[in-house]
Amino acid sequence: MKKVAIVMGSNSDAPVMLAATETLDRFGIEYEVEVMSAHRSPEQVRSFVEKARERGFGVIIAGAGGAAHLAGVVAAHTTLPVIGVPLDSSPLHGVDALYSTVQMPAGVPVACVAIGKPGAINAGVLAAQLLGITDEGIARKLDEHRRGMAEEVARKSAELKASWRRT
Amino acid sequence: MKKVAIVMGSNSDAPVMLAATETLDRFGIEYEVEVMSAHRSPEQVRSFVEKARERGFGVIIAGAGGAAHLAGVVAAHTTLPVIGVPLDSSPLHGVDALYSTVQMPAGVPVACVAIGKPGAINAGVLAAQLLGITDEGIARKLDEHRRGMAEEVARKSAELKASWRRT
Amino acid sequence: MKKVAIVMGSNSDAPVMLAATETLDRFGIEYEVEVMSAHRSPEQVRSFVEKARERGFGVIIAGAGGAAHLAGVVAAHTTLPVIGVPLDSSPLHGVDALYSTVQMPAGVPVACVAIGKPGAINAGVLAAQLLGITDEGIARKLDEHRRGMAEEVARKSAELKASWRRT
Amino acid sequence: MKKVAIVMGSNSDAPVMLAATETLDRFGIEYEVEVMSAHRSPEQVRSFVEKARERGFGVIIAGAGGAAHLAGVVAAHTTLPVIGVPLDSSPLHGVDALYSTVQMPAGVPVACVAIGKPGAINAGVLAAQLLGITDEGIARKLDEHRRGMAEEVARKSAELKASWRRT
Amino acid sequence: MKKVAIVMGSNSDAPVMLAATETLDRFGIEYEVEVMSAHRSPEQVRSFVEKARERGFGVIIAGAGGAAHLAGVVAAHTTLPVIGVPLDSSPLHGVDALYSTVQMPAGVPVACVAIGKPGAINAGVLAAQLLGITDEGIARKLDEHRRGMAEEVARKSAELKASWRRT
Amino acid sequence: MKKVAIVMGSNSDAPVMLAATETLDRFGIEYEVEVMSAHRSPEQVRSFVEKARERGFGVIIAGAGGAAHLAGVVAAHTTLPVIGVPLDSSPLHGVDALYSTVQMPAGVPVACVAIGKPGAINAGVLAAQLLGITDEGIARKLDEHRRGMAEEVARKSAELKASWRRT
Amino acid sequence: MKKVAIVMGSNSDAPVMLAATETLDRFGIEYEVEVMSAHRSPEQVRSFVEKARERGFGVIIAGAGGAAHLAGVVAAHTTLPVIGVPLDSSPLHGVDALYSTVQMPAGVPVACVAIGKPGAINAGVLAAQLLGITDEGIARKLDEHRRGMAEEVARKSAELKASWRRT
Amino acid sequence: MKKVAIVMGSNSDAPVMLAATETLDRFGIEYEVEVMSAHRSPEQVRSFVEKARERGFGVIIAGAGGAAHLAGVVAAHTTLPVIGVPLDSSPLHGVDALYSTVQMPAGVPVACVAIGKPGAINAGVLAAQLLGITDEGIARKLDEHRRGMAEEVARKSAELKASWRRT
Repeated sequence: MKKVAIVMGSNSDAPVMLAATETLDRFGIEYEVEVMSAHRSPEQVRSFVEKARERGFGVIIAGAGGAAHLAGVVAAHTTLPVIGVPLDSSPLHGVDALYSTVQMPAGVPVACVAIGKPGAINAGVLAAQLLGITDEGIARKLDEHRRGMAEEVARKSAELKASWRRT
Repeated sequence: MKKVAIVMGSNSDAPVMLAATETLDRFGIEYEVEVMSAHRSPEQVRSFVEKARERGFGVIIAGAGGAAHLAGVVAAHTTLPVIGVPLDSSPLHGVDALYSTVQMPAGVPVACVAIGKPGAINAGVLAAQLLGITDEGIARKLDEHRRGMAEEVARKSAELKASWRRT
Repeated sequence: MKKVAIVMGSNSDAPVMLAATETLDRFGIEYEVEVMSAHRSPEQVRSFVEKARERGFGVIIAGAGGAAHLAGVVAAHTTLPVIGVPLDSSPLHGVDALYSTVQMPAGVPVACVAIGKPGAINAGVLAAQLLGITDEGIARKLDEHRRGMAEEVARKSAELKASWRRT
Repeated sequence: MKKVAIVMGSNSDAPVMLAATETLDRFGIEYEVEVMSAHRSPEQVRSFVEKARERGFGVIIAGAGGAAHLAGVVAAHTTLPVIGVPLDSSPLHGVDALYSTVQMPAGVPVACVAIGKPGAINAGVLAAQLLGITDEGIARKLDEHRRGMAEEVARKSAELKASWRRT
Repeated sequence: MKKVAIVMGSNSDAPVMLAATETLDRFGIEYEVEVMSAHRSPEQVRSFVEKARERGFGVIIAGAGGAAHLAGVVAAHTTLPVIGVPLDSSPLHGVDALYSTVQMPAGVPVACVAIGKPGAINAGVLAAQLLGITDEGIARKLDEHRRGMAEEVARKSAELKASWRRT
Repeated sequence: MKKVAIVMGSNSDAPVMLAATETLDRFGIEYEVEVMSAHRSPEQVRSFVEKARERGFGVIIAGAGGAAHLAGVVAAHTTLPVIGVPLDSSPLHGVDALYSTVQMPAGVPVACVAIGKPGAINAGVLAAQLLGITDEGIARKLDEHRRGMAEEVARKSAELKASWRRT
Repeated sequence: MKKVAIVMGSNSDAPVMLAATETLDRFGIEYEVEVMSAHRSPEQVRSFVEKARERGFGVIIAGAGGAAHLAGVVAAHTTLPVIGVPLDSSPLHGVDALYSTVQMPAGVPVACVAIGKPGAINAGVLAAQLLGITDEGIARKLDEHRRGMAEEVARKSAELKASWRRT
Repeated sequence: MKKVAIVMGSNSDAPVMLAATETLDRFGIEYEVEVMSAHRSPEQVRSFVEKARERGFGVIIAGAGGAAHLAGVVAAHTTLPVIGVPLDSSPLHGVDALYSTVQMPAGVPVACVAIGKPGAINAGVLAAQLLGITDEGIARKLDEHRRGMAEEVARKSAELKASWRRT
């Protein structure tokens, strides 16, 4: 099975990006984490990404805030799918990172997910979905996960109805 | 090989979404197109999407403007990867569609690409990349496509340098 | 008298949506609360909403944050009026939820109110106004409520004038 | 049956607001149109709105652009439900009108719909839905209208599939 | 000398609007404060504003947040100059109040100042400037105030230069 | 009677700012126009503005687009009231000019009006209101102007009602 | 004297970026133009930029629209100053390019100028200013250019005053 | 060697602007700090800036929030390069300061960097880059600094990989 690379622009992004690894753990998908900066260590980005496919990676998740060029620069060095997680780490609350991650020019896509922690979780789920296109084991786990979420919503709804009047 | 489904919220979105089909044609990937609305024909969406995996689809591309719930609603009915193309069809110039497509809650991702035509093209490229994770033929075509783009940029640059002074 | 359904995308939305129930209590209007997610439990949404009219509901209030598709998806399954409350639960401060709730396509409206708690309160008042179109008892209570607000403003104004110099 | 009032801040708003009247015509709902300005003719607004309920109106639709205070000022003078249509008539493309219409303070709601023409159409549909809470004839027409939309989407989808390859 | 009226949409706005009164105190200008709501107490607004000129007011300062119709509604009832202070009291951080206060239609202006406390202070200074057009005593005080600010900046600059290296 | 100065950052702003002069003509108020740039001709700004009060000006209207520092720089050189008109002359559609004009720091206000032509008209009306604080002749003309607007709205409303069915 | 490199993400950006070359021509500064894409031809960017200092360049101007990573990626490969020109070539009107160009992380600056053509002109002026820090000839030309602008503003002002009444 | 001037609109901006001085210290570049306000002390700005070149300054860094005219006004009085740092000191989170700093008209550029502290740091780095165009000692230090950053990223990456599983 292909591995997932999780790269981030700064180690201060690690607490949020941790959510992606926890999600991949849940689906039993192997991954590696790396801090690399499109601006401060571009050679590290290039050398890591260019070897990614041959090293067995199938997907690269890139999280960055502010100008957030990381996902785009990663995408420039590979034809593997790149999932971009815009992070909320500037006064613009992640709008800068969102625009910079999603508005890629024709020919070099980034698969952008939500700003911040929900995006990091979804980067993990989306990576599982990509691998699950041809991997039936993962596809089954995704279906279970989805059913689990529906059940949890129903349980929360029942709890809320029970408690509403008492609050 | 898995097919790609291209769905859109309105037939007025077809001219833009056409770019996705042209891109898939270039990579020799099969696809089907469908108009379906998250709001006006929700049953059509559900019935199409629920059968998508068993009907041989590996990826679903969904384009919509305005409130642009289509990609999210498609994602709610499948664990196949869903690529969302926010369209510029309201006075808000696609910001509404972008936020609505990308800000999905934890657990149900949409892979959002750029607003409008570059996004539609990139939805096609991204779909090819997803299938190319495990399909070496597509991966090779993606690499050629990438090299072709680099060569075209270099050629355009040479032309520009030659013509600059004369303009 | 018709009942009001108050649905929300997550139980974390309950503290804000509570304001809608308190408002309905003030007007003596019956309601039910439910947690349901357009993305994580779409079947629950569909089955609840499709039966809503026959179960005696006259209005559905739906609160959600982020991509906030809930109100629109509810509206897709019923021709009862749907009031959408965009919630401030992402780094975009509710602008994402607002655009997603209000920018519905022609044919399937959502009645959108303000972001967050004022919106939740007003969802309750608006629901009362809808039922008050034909229910004179509610219409009378609405007029009293309005007069009460005007009197409260006048009282607060008097207090402020009295205290201003002393602060 | 209750009538609907359609008021707008300027006669230049009439071409867009026309869409609301066409929608009401489709549902056989009676209405009156009026130009009135929250700022240039506040007494006209007050006197029209204060008498609206007794004159047989059940809903008021108010369309305005720019600062767009009209819907809010109408709502201040009645406890009938007020539907606000933010119009795109300033360099801010209707964002100003949207914020001004939707961000009403607790206690005095406006039911805001989409910016511009889709909003005007939906104001008509929403008005029908409000009257349809207790009017079964309208409720039936709304259900037919909804089915018609679903059928039209399906027809458009079939046409698109037929024509796609030929374009 | 003409008085200044300071009105605000809610008594929760008083702490910010206090800054306007302190500024007027500094220039020896008389004023009255009042809480009044464009939506919850429109008659109070109208009756206060219509009598404002004959009661000796020369300027009205209106502060409000959210949809912030107060300044516009005040302006609709008088031809006295109205200064609007948009307040930051919603999740949109005052952008809603700013757009709603400043984007008035042709014919009925509001003189909009900055969001929040700097705006409240400047509403006081601007009111003094308006009265100072024809009142030489106020004009002189304004010039002194301006010189005082320049001196304070110079003093702060000197302090900063002295302390910089030690921090 | 005091005169009004109308200054603008570029002669390309003249067609919009013309609306301010037409408005002043209607109220019989004298004015002068001047092109001056906060960035390209700062000495011209300073020397004009510093002499403005003694030359008989009572109000300065300043229109500018883009970074739009003109109104603020004018305000820095005088304690006369300065009315700022943000112009829509950049890809940001006047939001840049609006923020730059309205967000003045405490102590040096600008009275900001709407973006573009409605703002230019209202700058003229506001200037008349400022002079009308103490000039009864102008105050009377302002009241007539206001009544004229109300009558025009009523007439437009009657025309619309008459023509509606025929369109 | 150092040369200036003008690079752009696409040859469709050439008409706007032409303004930078015309400005450099005016100051007698040598330059080269190149089309290069951060995403489609990253090796071309790297190889051009890494050699820029030794090839005699003193400044690099980079223009790009959409995600607009070009200026940042150029800055990642050199410690020469990089001037970024955000271009208006997506539905977001250059806000995406602006945020992406200006919000660079600590350590790797881009000197961002205005969106579009004024930015392209100013990139040329700024490049001249950078070279003019130590080159007295350029500094003199900049001062003449500045004086010329002030004179042109004064001339335009005189023309406007002469023509105003006649229009 | 040329000195750098660091000016700011208020002494409350000093804690953020301190980052620029620390950066210049690292490169051994001399500087002076000054508080000066475009609006409250325009003469101080003018007199400081007009003498800046002859006093040995090569670059001026200007930080300001809100309407943030300081960098533009500084640029109006000199042809030295001016670096603008937009500060996050209003409810608009620095977007106002960003637009006001970056959207300068053709002819008078400001080199705008990121909002807040990263911008202040980068103003220092950019100033070093400007002086480093012709100063080989600074150019060498900049290259070392860049290498240091790449090494730090690699070290942080190694730490993260080591600690990931243990968190």
